Amino acid sequence: MKKVTVLGSTGSIGVSALDVIEKNPGRFRVAALAAGKNIKLLHRQIEKFRPKIVSVSDLQSAAELRRQINPGTRTKIVAGREGLQEVASFTGADIVLSAISGAAGLLPTLAAIEAGKDIALANKETMVIAGGIVTEKAREKGVSILPVDSEHSAVFQCLQGQQHRNIKKIILTASGGPFLNYKKSELKKVTVSEALRHPRWKMGKKITIDSASMMNKGLEVIEAKWLFDLEMEQIDILIHPQSVVHSMVEFVDGSLLAQMGIPDMRTPIAYALTYPERIKNDLPLLDLAKTKNLEFLQPDMKKFPCIRLAYEAGTCGGTMPAVLNAANEVTVEAFLDKKIKFVDLPEIIDKVLSGHKIVKKPALEELLQADKWARMQAKEIIERGTY
Amino acid sequence: MKKVTVLGSTGSIGVSALDVIEKNPGRFRVAALAAGKNIKLLHRQIEKFRPKIVSVSDLQSAAELRRQINPGTRTKIVAGREGLQEVASFTGADIVLSAISGAAGLLPTLAAIEAGKDIALANKETMVIAGGIVTEKAREKGVSILPVDSEHSAVFQCLQGQQHRNIKKIILTASGGPFLNYKKSELKKVTVSEALRHPRWKMGKKITIDSASMMNKGLEVIEAKWLFDLEMEQIDILIHPQSVVHSMVEFVDGSLLAQMGIPDMRTPIAYALTYPERIKNDLPLLDLAKTKNLEFLQPDMKKFPCIRLAYEAGTCGGTMPAVLNAANEVTVEAFLDKKIKFVDLPEIIDKVLSGHKIVKKPALEELLQADKWARMQAKEIIERGTY
Repeated sequence: MKKVTVLGSTGSIGVSALDVIEKNPGRFRVAALAAGKNIKLLHRQIEKFRPKIVSVSDLQSAAELRRQINPGTRTKIVAGREGLQEVASFTGADIVLSAISGAAGLLPTLAAIEAGKDIALANKETMVIAGGIVTEKAREKGVSILPVDSEHSAVFQCLQGQQHRNIKKIILTASGGPFLNYKKSELKKVTVSEALRHPRWKMGKKITIDSASMMNKGLEVIEAKWLFDLEMEQIDILIHPQSVVHSMVEFVDGSLLAQMGIPDMRTPIAYALTYPERIKNDLPLLDLAKTKNLEFLQPDMKKFPCIRLAYEAGTCGGTMPAVLNAANEVTVEAFLDKKIKFVDLPEIIDKVLSGHKIVKKPALEELLQADKWARMQAKEIIERGTY
Repeated sequence: MKKVTVLGSTGSIGVSALDVIEKNPGRFRVAALAAGKNIKLLHRQIEKFRPKIVSVSDLQSAAELRRQINPGTRTKIVAGREGLQEVASFTGADIVLSAISGAAGLLPTLAAIEAGKDIALANKETMVIAGGIVTEKAREKGVSILPVDSEHSAVFQCLQGQQHRNIKKIILTASGGPFLNYKKSELKKVTVSEALRHPRWKMGKKITIDSASMMNKGLEVIEAKWLFDLEMEQIDILIHPQSVVHSMVEFVDGSLLAQMGIPDMRTPIAYALTYPERIKNDLPLLDLAKTKNLEFLQPDMKKFPCIRLAYEAGTCGGTMPAVLNAANEVTVEAFLDKKIKFVDLPEIIDKVLSGHKIVKKPALEELLQADKWARMQAKEIIERGTY
């Protein structure tokens, strides 16, 4: 019986993970949950999974949850940043699924590693911001970091039983998002609701916008660099609109291994939770004879400059990827709030990156400062309209 | 330095293997070679690779080779069945590449296993005829059987680091051969030279005809059953005209792993010879963005009844696959000699299979007898024209 803590339990990944856990009662138990403000859903999750401890974003939400909950429920309720850290490092867990969206996922993930817990990592920002610190800490503590992103799970699966020195490169596939076939000029007019209409994957808003701008793929490249100990030049992106091939590894002999499946996050989530075991599920199977055609195209870096920005930031290293990520989070929010246009995203991020004085081997504190600085910069640029 | 014996050195696989060996002089040395009657090419191979011993098909060929060879050459020349066995079990080798075409490959492969040599197996008939005996003998002697067929190499690569109990099924891909888009009625008129025009792979005549009739894929299914310890129902065939995905494994969680590459036998040959290592080569790389579309289709068992015959024989087991293979070898030869039509192949094989009294757990001697019986039967049926 594996005891699982889910950070971000009311988000898209968290809900899928709890579905996997619910369908395998003999295999998993929920140890702890962390959510934000979706008290209604968290309440139901508590009733169903009876975690020992849950955290919510603030004291107000905690009070509301206490009002709703059955008086007999023995779940401890905590709140705020400290509450989240308490849940992340809760001793009763064997593995912590890190599925909080954005930079907010970094500190609880580090806390879980510090507590010696294996990590099922869905929060790519953890690696983008502080990949060096996170991988070193994981090594020191002897914990495994198991990828949950479908692309990284695919690469991880392809690398089983293979020698690291035999990797030539990895190829992360990308659906291309809703604007794959738009002209550059057409991107100027796209609306928020158009950007939220992802052709293949149902995901949270932030990552759906990242997919539309292809920043998501850029962040994944940086994540992959740390997860698989590769150079940025060893990581390619290939557009694959059917989202059937989830990613690939090319070896020095020209041989490629690819992992495929239907686009459903429950498969990589389950693999991360059960690795090296695999468990059955009731999901539909991939039928290649019905899919018929699998297409592959080079990504268009001119149409999607976020890819280039991510490669540049990842190659610079140091505090640069943290700045990239923070600037991206602020601009995506501004886009969702209809304060800026879709094509402004890379312009603003580029401006923030250009103004940043890189720290080459940053400590955690310096990374958090860079993150803060970038957010302020991005907000200023947006307010002033100087992009 | 790995010492390699090549059985079938003048055939398509043998020549490719020697190319791999030549390009990696620090890694391999040729221990011994076995060829048939292509004395001219064997002669050149002896000059280049200086094997300790070579075998040819008969005393006449041996005499001719002795005449041609440099007087100073210290290569021992042997002939006939005993000569071939001597080469196969030559103590100076670390690994034996079994690449003789057809049933003739069985006994030397068994001799190599008996001598404790690892086997790089290109001769699928070894497994089709006597998979049970061969795998048991290999286990007893502690030798590895490394697949060379691109499909089986692909499956083998996908299974690295994976647990056998997690395999749901394997999917062998097939180009579909030259007649993929022919109507059933059009198959009646196809000529030998049309059947020899394989769209993707350059191979020997026998296997090229087998690819056209799709018997090759049927034999591969039986081979895979033994190589990977699976049931026949766990092995599917999928038509994939681009021959880029070399085969796949589906796991219990719905996840698929696939191996891809350009269609060149030197990659799987090298992998079998260097496993678990991979070596660089100067072959062109697979560029999926240039390939663009990968298609997958269900095979048409009505148009290609050889597939059904192979599944039936493989499911019956015992002596049945040996009979299938022997009948196929005779009919393919008759087709190449223009004695029968392309569509007669499955008819004759079916007739031979129907007349066979199966031995359920055959000893080697019984398998060889079944092989002999099936050849006689097939020849008789062809001579009488009763199909």
